[in-house]
Amino acid sequence: MSIIDFRSDNTGAAAPQMIEAIAAANIGTAAGYGADEWTTALQQRFSDFFETKVRVFPVATGTAANALALASICPPFSAVYCSGIAHIETSEGNATGFFGAGTKLVHVDGPHGKMDPAKLSDALAGAGVGLTHKSQPAAINLTQATDLGAVYSLDEIHALTNVARVHGLKVHMDGARFANAAARLGCTPAEATWKAGVDILSFGVTKNGGVMADGIVVFSPDVAQQLAFHLRRAGQVWSKMRFGSAQLMRYIEGGLWLDLARRSNAAAARIASALSGEPGVRLLAPVEANEIFVEMVPAAMDALEREGIRFFRRGPRMARFVCRWDTTDAEIRALTDAIVRSSAALVR
Amino acid sequence: MSIIDFRSDNTGAAAPQMIEAIAAANIGTAAGYGADEWTTALQQRFSDFFETKVRVFPVATGTAANALALASICPPFSAVYCSGIAHIETSEGNATGFFGAGTKLVHVDGPHGKMDPAKLSDALAGAGVGLTHKSQPAAINLTQATDLGAVYSLDEIHALTNVARVHGLKVHMDGARFANAAARLGCTPAEATWKAGVDILSFGVTKNGGVMADGIVVFSPDVAQQLAFHLRRAGQVWSKMRFGSAQLMRYIEGGLWLDLARRSNAAAARIASALSGEPGVRLLAPVEANEIFVEMVPAAMDALEREGIRFFRRGPRMARFVCRWDTTDAEIRALTDAIVRSSAALVR
Amino acid sequence: MSIIDFRSDNTGAAAPQMIEAIAAANIGTAAGYGADEWTTALQQRFSDFFETKVRVFPVATGTAANALALASICPPFSAVYCSGIAHIETSEGNATGFFGAGTKLVHVDGPHGKMDPAKLSDALAGAGVGLTHKSQPAAINLTQATDLGAVYSLDEIHALTNVARVHGLKVHMDGARFANAAARLGCTPAEATWKAGVDILSFGVTKNGGVMADGIVVFSPDVAQQLAFHLRRAGQVWSKMRFGSAQLMRYIEGGLWLDLARRSNAAAARIASALSGEPGVRLLAPVEANEIFVEMVPAAMDALEREGIRFFRRGPRMARFVCRWDTTDAEIRALTDAIVRSSAALVR
Amino acid sequence: MSIIDFRSDNTGAAAPQMIEAIAAANIGTAAGYGADEWTTALQQRFSDFFETKVRVFPVATGTAANALALASICPPFSAVYCSGIAHIETSEGNATGFFGAGTKLVHVDGPHGKMDPAKLSDALAGAGVGLTHKSQPAAINLTQATDLGAVYSLDEIHALTNVARVHGLKVHMDGARFANAAARLGCTPAEATWKAGVDILSFGVTKNGGVMADGIVVFSPDVAQQLAFHLRRAGQVWSKMRFGSAQLMRYIEGGLWLDLARRSNAAAARIASALSGEPGVRLLAPVEANEIFVEMVPAAMDALEREGIRFFRRGPRMARFVCRWDTTDAEIRALTDAIVRSSAALVR
Repeated sequence: MSIIDFRSDNTGAAAPQMIEAIAAANIGTAAGYGADEWTTALQQRFSDFFETKVRVFPVATGTAANALALASICPPFSAVYCSGIAHIETSEGNATGFFGAGTKLVHVDGPHGKMDPAKLSDALAGAGVGLTHKSQPAAINLTQATDLGAVYSLDEIHALTNVARVHGLKVHMDGARFANAAARLGCTPAEATWKAGVDILSFGVTKNGGVMADGIVVFSPDVAQQLAFHLRRAGQVWSKMRFGSAQLMRYIEGGLWLDLARRSNAAAARIASALSGEPGVRLLAPVEANEIFVEMVPAAMDALEREGIRFFRRGPRMARFVCRWDTTDAEIRALTDAIVRSSAALVR
Repeated sequence: MSIIDFRSDNTGAAAPQMIEAIAAANIGTAAGYGADEWTTALQQRFSDFFETKVRVFPVATGTAANALALASICPPFSAVYCSGIAHIETSEGNATGFFGAGTKLVHVDGPHGKMDPAKLSDALAGAGVGLTHKSQPAAINLTQATDLGAVYSLDEIHALTNVARVHGLKVHMDGARFANAAARLGCTPAEATWKAGVDILSFGVTKNGGVMADGIVVFSPDVAQQLAFHLRRAGQVWSKMRFGSAQLMRYIEGGLWLDLARRSNAAAARIASALSGEPGVRLLAPVEANEIFVEMVPAAMDALEREGIRFFRRGPRMARFVCRWDTTDAEIRALTDAIVRSSAALVR
Repeated sequence: MSIIDFRSDNTGAAAPQMIEAIAAANIGTAAGYGADEWTTALQQRFSDFFETKVRVFPVATGTAANALALASICPPFSAVYCSGIAHIETSEGNATGFFGAGTKLVHVDGPHGKMDPAKLSDALAGAGVGLTHKSQPAAINLTQATDLGAVYSLDEIHALTNVARVHGLKVHMDGARFANAAARLGCTPAEATWKAGVDILSFGVTKNGGVMADGIVVFSPDVAQQLAFHLRRAGQVWSKMRFGSAQLMRYIEGGLWLDLARRSNAAAARIASALSGEPGVRLLAPVEANEIFVEMVPAAMDALEREGIRFFRRGPRMARFVCRWDTTDAEIRALTDAIVRSSAALVR
Repeated sequence: MSIIDFRSDNTGAAAPQMIEAIAAANIGTAAGYGADEWTTALQQRFSDFFETKVRVFPVATGTAANALALASICPPFSAVYCSGIAHIETSEGNATGFFGAGTKLVHVDGPHGKMDPAKLSDALAGAGVGLTHKSQPAAINLTQATDLGAVYSLDEIHALTNVARVHGLKVHMDGARFANAAARLGCTPAEATWKAGVDILSFGVTKNGGVMADGIVVFSPDVAQQLAFHLRRAGQVWSKMRFGSAQLMRYIEGGLWLDLARRSNAAAARIASALSGEPGVRLLAPVEANEIFVEMVPAAMDALEREGIRFFRRGPRMARFVCRWDTTDAEIRALTDAIVRSSAALVR
């Protein structure tokens, strides 16, 4: 592999254990569509993992997880309150509106991709609850880690979910990078979710060493019942579900999920540290997970590309670098060297 | 494995080659969402396979393949003409209507799960084309093999697609068991599809030794363009698409798909042969693929279950037995013996 | 008016009282979107009319009434059980499926456009409740009067709604010709609806002398709450709602609704009586409301048209004649004479 | 009428001519669902009115007009670019997203409820055209007059529609107050629409003296063909369509539409003039149609209400006053006196 790849965590390889788990599930016959032993066991393992009875549904993608989780908690004339740079807003086509039959996304700003609780409160106060010409607030969506690579503290989550509760809204957490956030917070999965007021969780696996399954974790039984039908109608129920369930089980077994996340977090931290104090380099948010967002002039970004660094431009002056669980030391050095070099030359 | 399992072909194991293909794709980094080398190569391989330029999209499930294929060729006030026992009618929740924003399914009967061309023609003649209060005919749906285990001959397909063409309808083939049908027909994939008038194909993999991916094959470039957006919105585009594309490529490599299908077809043929002429046993359709549908009284079905045979009741007097690529000789013998025994005792 | 018009009851004039009611409501200013005095009064009048507290929503059309009533009581993975010739199945585009995000219609046959309770019971028993690949039964739809011009007796309604209750389904009555049915039954509006197990009613006005409004009457408060939002999102809430509410109020005032329905019923009865016993004329259902369905050979229908009779062919050998509140004696005579004449000549 | 009503133009009475038109259409029978003579004539009258061949569809409400117009020009993975205070964003529930199966609204700001062409251009340049994870730009939506009571000049419209054309977008004009805008501009209906690049128009009638119908005017035949089916499926096609068509015809006959709009515009102009220069009174946009938006402290708004003035608060410090075609001199004087009085006392 000759390229230096910071495009995304989903460009990375799967952890070998995850593929071994698929292979290991390939024994004998098993009932289809989730009626198999693996999926049954998965319910218990995730209930243990989250220290409460949950329902967990493996799904194909994070977009499916987000859109169907929201569809299961929102009536068809509703609004979801989220950050203006939330993944459901910027990067999932019209999935939320489609699965929700029109569900609208309302932006609530705040620092580093977080929603500000006071602004959420204000927005809800002026939302026109009960007025039929207004989209009715139904849920909030938190991206954890955020879409600028920051991590909500438990206090910050509590502050937002309290506002949601006061207004009768459900709480959805987009945990595409849940492991990175949990690794950062050093708390239990329970503390990071239902104990902090989360009703339903998109449980990301793919970006953190997974193969081709993510999950939806439901902390409320009545929601789960509906969701099973939503998923089947959406073509998100594998007939050979055991291969999906085996992935999710292996992912949380023996702390694999945390090990992988700690590696990508550490890689990002090293990069952030190396860039700290460099002239002309400005981080757009604290590096608390595995993503680094840097303000750069276009010429600096051009220069990186010429050196073989692969990354995504998220704006005319915004570069995003994402670390994988298997990002190498060489890649880290190559990137930091290149940034320092190009920025030094380009400071204006 | 102690049970004798004829529940479905999706209860079976994956072919080891398919899992090896996933493992083999786990090298280095790769662009996300289908911009990787595997998915690029897949386009060429499938174009070779079908002897024409096609677009192929790996998707998570057969339901997704069917519903999104139809949504991409049907306007939102349309009707799809299909057998009354078509999978899209009986077994996919409301997926077609959901992805099609109301698309209606109109039944056209015929022998053994096939549509009768004359009845299709009559139905279309009376459909009220151009009348806004009528669902507008937009597509036909052929299940190949059919939902009673029969296989459309090429002539039968041509007869139906001709009717579709005359009325301006698109043709969708639900090929959940396309390999079994092709193995039976002994024709090329091209002959079985676009040369016979098919516009878009749900390309089944899972039931025939796959792991967790099926495909949509599009023979018309303009349809493919729209479909890419439909799929993204539907949460059917894996970020690590290489693992889906690798499965589909391996499936058609070296004739694996046909080898696997021939095995399950042969198993079914042996069972059908063994049952032939037995008193009290009536096959509900010719056994031309890997499924056997038998009329049985409830007591006979009860007796089978007591002997440890697993299968599905598709009606009060209808039993379905499905052979897998790895159905064993012992299973075949166990089933035929049990049927002969129980039926002999229960003939009325 | 020179033509002899039996095309539909919606081709007829509005009752002058209905237009006067619109004119009378045109005084001063009034709050928009249903917050006006007329709409408030309407709630009380209809609650009196139905002898129970109801919510009533004026809507633009019968299709809107049906599709939105059903959408308000059906989850998005559901099935509605109805006659195979129900208006929602044959004549409303894909409205039910569209507003219901995929809601499927399942046919239950019976005599004269009615559902047979035993067949309904059988269908529900085999529906696969709780299985995610099956559309989940959520409601039944009764067309009263039926789409063949018959009228459900109260006992027949009770028999069906009992089956619905046992299976946990809601009951929707499509009362596009509710007045004609009530006139026939000689019962109170309450007896014909909620006392017989109906949860929500499409209250037809247009076909029976109305101008441009129908209504949805909800007998369950929780359903009504959701429906208000559904209607607003669907563009079915007039800003000058007073003109819709004024129509509905006038319609039930002083028995106008029954007077109008009795006229069209009587016209139909006279025609049926005149045709009774004529050779070659076969009525396809008892004439119990204002529609007459006659089996006729195409040549007989051609002959009618040559004599200036306007009507609709509902099949190659089925003619439908609909009487309006203002169908004239001359029209009745012209039709019966023409049928007798043409049929006598065409008996085979 | 004792209240002083500036709540909305839809609280006003209908022009008597409009109700007379309904009454005049109540003669004889007429084919249903738009196949009548009035609707046929309507096509010709509107084609004359707009100096080009158009299709015009009467619909029940402005929300229906907007949402269905947009649904007919937007594929189901699209985005509509509009002002952040556009009516489709703030006041129509989720109608656009619902009828568009997920269509997203993207805000483009500018002065006085207008979109700024340069900002539109920037937004489209960064929209990610061709990227499946991005909502694809499909249309722009102009509110004319705007939602702050300003009017786009013809040059301003051209500037925006040019941007739309360059990017391949269709142009929808929300003409809920089209008459007020046209009266202000002093141009022909053609100049204000298709000659300025508009593809489809929500033609407002209700707010300007109408009863219970608005219209959709289509300048492109291929769009119109689809729209007819969309409308039928949406329950927006009256069976007695003649009463809708008669309203729209009468509205444009003899300049009635302009006469009515000139009255409400003149009333608003008089109020604006009276407020001009008053200390403590700030108009939030130029008063170019029939609406006046005034920045006021809450106590000033409270004071107005105590004097019997009815109006809507559109924010904590924003009062909206709308003039009707029949707003009286007394109302105008009462309002201006009250504002001057309360504001003088409350200037801070």
